[in-house]
Amino acid sequence: MKRTRVLHWGLGAMGAGAARMVLGKQGLELAGAVCRTPSKLGKDIGDILGVGKTGAQVSSSLAEALGRGPADIVIHATGSFTREVYGQLVEAVHAGLDVITIAEEMAYPWVGEPELARSLDELAKAKGVTVLGTGVNPGFVLDTLVITLTGACIRVDSIRAARVNDLSPFGPTVMRTQGVGTTLEEFQAGVAAGNIVGHVGFPESMTMIAKAIGWELDEIKQEKQPIVSKVYRETPHVKVQPGMVAGCNHTAWGYMDGRVVITLEHPQQIHPGLAGVETGDYIWITGEPNINVANKPEVPGGIGTIATSVNMIPLVRAAAPGLLTMADLPLPRATMGRS
Amino acid sequence: MKRTRVLHWGLGAMGAGAARMVLGKQGLELAGAVCRTPSKLGKDIGDILGVGKTGAQVSSSLAEALGRGPADIVIHATGSFTREVYGQLVEAVHAGLDVITIAEEMAYPWVGEPELARSLDELAKAKGVTVLGTGVNPGFVLDTLVITLTGACIRVDSIRAARVNDLSPFGPTVMRTQGVGTTLEEFQAGVAAGNIVGHVGFPESMTMIAKAIGWELDEIKQEKQPIVSKVYRETPHVKVQPGMVAGCNHTAWGYMDGRVVITLEHPQQIHPGLAGVETGDYIWITGEPNINVANKPEVPGGIGTIATSVNMIPLVRAAAPGLLTMADLPLPRATMGRS
Repeated sequence: MKRTRVLHWGLGAMGAGAARMVLGKQGLELAGAVCRTPSKLGKDIGDILGVGKTGAQVSSSLAEALGRGPADIVIHATGSFTREVYGQLVEAVHAGLDVITIAEEMAYPWVGEPELARSLDELAKAKGVTVLGTGVNPGFVLDTLVITLTGACIRVDSIRAARVNDLSPFGPTVMRTQGVGTTLEEFQAGVAAGNIVGHVGFPESMTMIAKAIGWELDEIKQEKQPIVSKVYRETPHVKVQPGMVAGCNHTAWGYMDGRVVITLEHPQQIHPGLAGVETGDYIWITGEPNINVANKPEVPGGIGTIATSVNMIPLVRAAAPGLLTMADLPLPRATMGRS
Repeated sequence: MKRTRVLHWGLGAMGAGAARMVLGKQGLELAGAVCRTPSKLGKDIGDILGVGKTGAQVSSSLAEALGRGPADIVIHATGSFTREVYGQLVEAVHAGLDVITIAEEMAYPWVGEPELARSLDELAKAKGVTVLGTGVNPGFVLDTLVITLTGACIRVDSIRAARVNDLSPFGPTVMRTQGVGTTLEEFQAGVAAGNIVGHVGFPESMTMIAKAIGWELDEIKQEKQPIVSKVYRETPHVKVQPGMVAGCNHTAWGYMDGRVVITLEHPQQIHPGLAGVETGDYIWITGEPNINVANKPEVPGGIGTIATSVNMIPLVRAAAPGLLTMADLPLPRATMGRS
């Protein structure tokens, strides 16, 4: 069997994790990496992963990486927003590579950047390659799984899904963007200023669900509420006194004909257990029949994002050209030989 | 939008339920039905469903039905086994119709009838139509959902899934085929004679999962154990004294390299609540990460089978020709307009 040659654009926690996963899969081969961190340039990817030599090097640009050897597909992990990563995606498509990106907005880019999405779709079709946005969320828990479960429903009246997770393992950037350790006033000011962002991906997941099942949403509303702690909580990066903010409860509502038909919730905080909160992925569908799914604990964010990005490689390689979503492709699956 | 014309082959509980669902969907149109029950022949399907005139009639053969008007796709619900329904499927394919069948073995017919599967695949490709086997199980809970969940896994070590349901609503045929109301001796004799069949579909679900994630199973073992009741249970069709059999606990194990890697369980009994058993669909994946999903209560068998068969219509209409499985098609979904 000819192995698929995978190029990693971005070697942060997600990109490096994906490279490590690729190394463990029979049908995949590490082709190289593109990274902007000076200390990693020119190194063997295996040295960065701490797994010994792989023969695949880190380059400073896509052109340099492809000069070192050919690739079939890019795993792209450099940013969250379509506008921010668009130029890189175009460059990969122009080079004739399939692309899987974990940029959250790219899970359903038509909702945030319809013109960029249209251009990228046309370009991908012209170049005969496939572009997919995926990840644990958006990309899996609050959209792919929800859509799949509606398949067993004669009728869907409304959908509510929640991803309840624990931020304790994350670093200072996540603490800052979720408002962990702020006072109530600081939290409100951070939300107003756009520094406390909550979850990126609700409009994307919601529109993906709606389109898949044939709903047209009139409006999407979102709200970020502080999770005020009643108890002391701390991590290596932050201390939260009682009365301070332990995280951000971000909720989105999708309306059709003036009625909320989709509610997506993502309360993220450090040490939810200290507040009696059980983490998990929850999906409730009201209809015929009702569906009441829980995955406890939740799919870990990092592992889930790494897994979905790499697991989709064979499906993307086999797919029709264009800019696709998880709803366009066959069932996701762990794949590539005895894993 | 041009509506898809659906012909129902078989008007038992499942076929009639599918016809009722089709009537409620914007993008679908009832084209007719084929049925062997003399009292239904020539009638308007709406009269049989108790919903008024639909203009679609019940015919005694496919040729007669197509003589009354054209169709695009057949929902086929006349039997469980590939060999039993093969002739009907071939007839529908020869007529140039896409086919969705709920025959359990057809969810993955290569495992039970590889030659018939190959022939049907070739014929479907030659005629440019698509054939799919689906249903709640096999077709959804113990295969489609399991495969989808592995998509979030970097590594899968083993899979266990259980569908725990309540047989109380079912009629005398189900009581007989699951051994409800038998003595222990009668149960063992019934299993040996092949009259107590348990669940049809384990090798199909198991092989579908294995193939999807790149495993090759060496062997599949199955066992049907009596669920002996400690308490009195009854339904309109059966009385179970303490010490008698309330149902059949059917389990299957898939082996790879001498190790069990997939376990599928389907304990079916009347009034499981009287034995403290909570019904539900359960999926446990051991790997990286572990997955621990529960849907409580279970997707009801009838509703789930009706829903999956009708919901897959647009995906089957858009699919490449050939004999396909749920793992080949995009995510299942409730579909066809505001439902």
